[in-house]
Amino acid sequence: MGQQIAFHKADQLKVKPDPEHLGFGRHFTDYMLEMDYSVDDGWHDARIVPYGPITLQPAATVFHYGQEVFEGMKAYRAEDGRILLFRPEMNMRRMNQSCARLNIPAIDEAFVTEAIMKLVDIEKDWIPSKPGQSLYIRPFIIGTESFLGVHPAESYKLIVILSPVGAYFGDTVNPVKIYVEDEYVRAVRGGIGFAKTGGNYAASLKAQSKAEELGFDQVLWLDGVEHKYVEEVGSMNIFFKVDGEVWTPALNGSILPGVTRDSVIRLLQHWGVPVKEKKISVKKLFKKAEKQKLEEVFGTGTAAVISPVGFLKWEDRLIRVGNGEIGPLSKKLYETLTGIQTGRLEDELGWMQEVSSEETAVAD
Amino acid sequence: MGQQIAFHKADQLKVKPDPEHLGFGRHFTDYMLEMDYSVDDGWHDARIVPYGPITLQPAATVFHYGQEVFEGMKAYRAEDGRILLFRPEMNMRRMNQSCARLNIPAIDEAFVTEAIMKLVDIEKDWIPSKPGQSLYIRPFIIGTESFLGVHPAESYKLIVILSPVGAYFGDTVNPVKIYVEDEYVRAVRGGIGFAKTGGNYAASLKAQSKAEELGFDQVLWLDGVEHKYVEEVGSMNIFFKVDGEVWTPALNGSILPGVTRDSVIRLLQHWGVPVKEKKISVKKLFKKAEKQKLEEVFGTGTAAVISPVGFLKWEDRLIRVGNGEIGPLSKKLYETLTGIQTGRLEDELGWMQEVSSEETAVAD
Repeated sequence: MGQQIAFHKADQLKVKPDPEHLGFGRHFTDYMLEMDYSVDDGWHDARIVPYGPITLQPAATVFHYGQEVFEGMKAYRAEDGRILLFRPEMNMRRMNQSCARLNIPAIDEAFVTEAIMKLVDIEKDWIPSKPGQSLYIRPFIIGTESFLGVHPAESYKLIVILSPVGAYFGDTVNPVKIYVEDEYVRAVRGGIGFAKTGGNYAASLKAQSKAEELGFDQVLWLDGVEHKYVEEVGSMNIFFKVDGEVWTPALNGSILPGVTRDSVIRLLQHWGVPVKEKKISVKKLFKKAEKQKLEEVFGTGTAAVISPVGFLKWEDRLIRVGNGEIGPLSKKLYETLTGIQTGRLEDELGWMQEVSSEETAVAD
Repeated sequence: MGQQIAFHKADQLKVKPDPEHLGFGRHFTDYMLEMDYSVDDGWHDARIVPYGPITLQPAATVFHYGQEVFEGMKAYRAEDGRILLFRPEMNMRRMNQSCARLNIPAIDEAFVTEAIMKLVDIEKDWIPSKPGQSLYIRPFIIGTESFLGVHPAESYKLIVILSPVGAYFGDTVNPVKIYVEDEYVRAVRGGIGFAKTGGNYAASLKAQSKAEELGFDQVLWLDGVEHKYVEEVGSMNIFFKVDGEVWTPALNGSILPGVTRDSVIRLLQHWGVPVKEKKISVKKLFKKAEKQKLEEVFGTGTAAVISPVGFLKWEDRLIRVGNGEIGPLSKKLYETLTGIQTGRLEDELGWMQEVSSEETAVAD
């Protein structure tokens, strides 16, 4: 690109939060990355600026017509001090797939990755290093044109903010209780389900609060056409270990193509565990459970990595998965993924990208 | 409520735009209405303030998870000087229906109507009065909590902005060319299709741009399950006059319950024209057209009021509706609705609400 990334220094840096009480997505670092799009200049003016509020016209597209996409990725601090990103090229590629669906102009994936690395490097002192902790990276793009008409915006903002986080579901890996939602629908083929865009999450809130009221942690979404086939759970992809095989719903246009999902499939293949992407009916799953063949269930996502499922409720039936605790395969996947991500385990599949500071690069 | 509405005067007022070139949704008045929601205080601090940018934290819910709803309504200046709103209670009720689906706390419909009337009264000099012109009113609510987790926000902003507008599709009522979309889907039952929320419009952009590339003005959406039944067109509801009867798709959860849609049905009933809300297959419509029984097609919405459809394209078939010009019933509906809205015709159905200034109220 030959594009420069400007750096505007903050007058004062923040006091960092207590690493014992990070929570998820509540604290933000000193800087953020910003970039603008206009029809005349394309994506331009990449700059790292002090973290602070965004000012937009009240008629900005994002407030009315939901033209917005986002990504979620993490930076980890390895024991040897290296700073590692997990498959960032996958997130950048997916961001462009989301952009294409939402009529948002494509970003230069390599350039934005470089800019994110620069931001993470500047903020490296913010990366927490206890088990389960990381620096969550949230790139997002919003339509900013001031115009009340349903059409793609002519101007956009890309922003990347960073948040030091603990484990998404708290400090211990407790199996979650899942409610199979048979009324509300998250997405349907031909819709926007495969894109990481606000509308899918907005559509999910009602079912999630219903599940919580009924005493469950998350919702298992069924397909929007027949309400029979499993799609994803809450904001994660879902896997089932059935009679020695691992199943996950095939990507059909209404399921988010998760980076952790893809990584789990590749790890299982690498290990020689049979794994199938297919259409999975909830009825069949419950039948398998009755016959004691449903061995493990787990969700996958950047935030939680692997989230074991202990209970599944569908209509009037409640099943306990295995003994209700995390299963051995789920545990092995969690430990392998987090091990690779934090540099404790060898990165056999070539997933990690190191963030090296310019000083180091020069010194080398 | 006993709530007060504060008024912060602007230092300087804007120069008003040329009434001959208003366009739609490009110009905004001097003031806007703002109101905040917090868990502790509920909806509070209603205030009319100078129109200007909104400042939000980068992690605000609306930028990531699409938690946003809006409404569209119009204020008209009658020939006798009265300022009239068209069925504002319908918009306020629908806004609360949208809020309920999106987990946004309900507004006090009567109070917000009163506040909007106060705003419109302050801005009455902005209401244009040529045929087809009006003051477009855009209330919207956005989630503002600074937190990166998928859950309903704990804080919100309600904002109402005003825009003097000409006719939505330009100065002449030209029939539009419609493309029946059979790949992309706008909404599905169990989803958010009935709510006026950003995600539905975001989902529609891709199909709309595809239709435009193919030389059409708008998209006709089919149902998300079977891709067989007509739902709505672009951002309007749709009506068909078939062999003397008027048909419109029944509200099924994935169709927006339009205020103009409801008004057209009531007007037709009032006139004794048979009107049916039902499931309408696109195949049947094309069969009727072949037999010269498809007499008129028109879209309905607040922005365009009545928008006649001249051509319909589905798969490889293109039909001309009637003689491709606006039909007599479409024309009568347009003239009656705009006549009632601008006070030229008697308001037999009791739809108009007058905005009376406080001075007048006191003087009375």
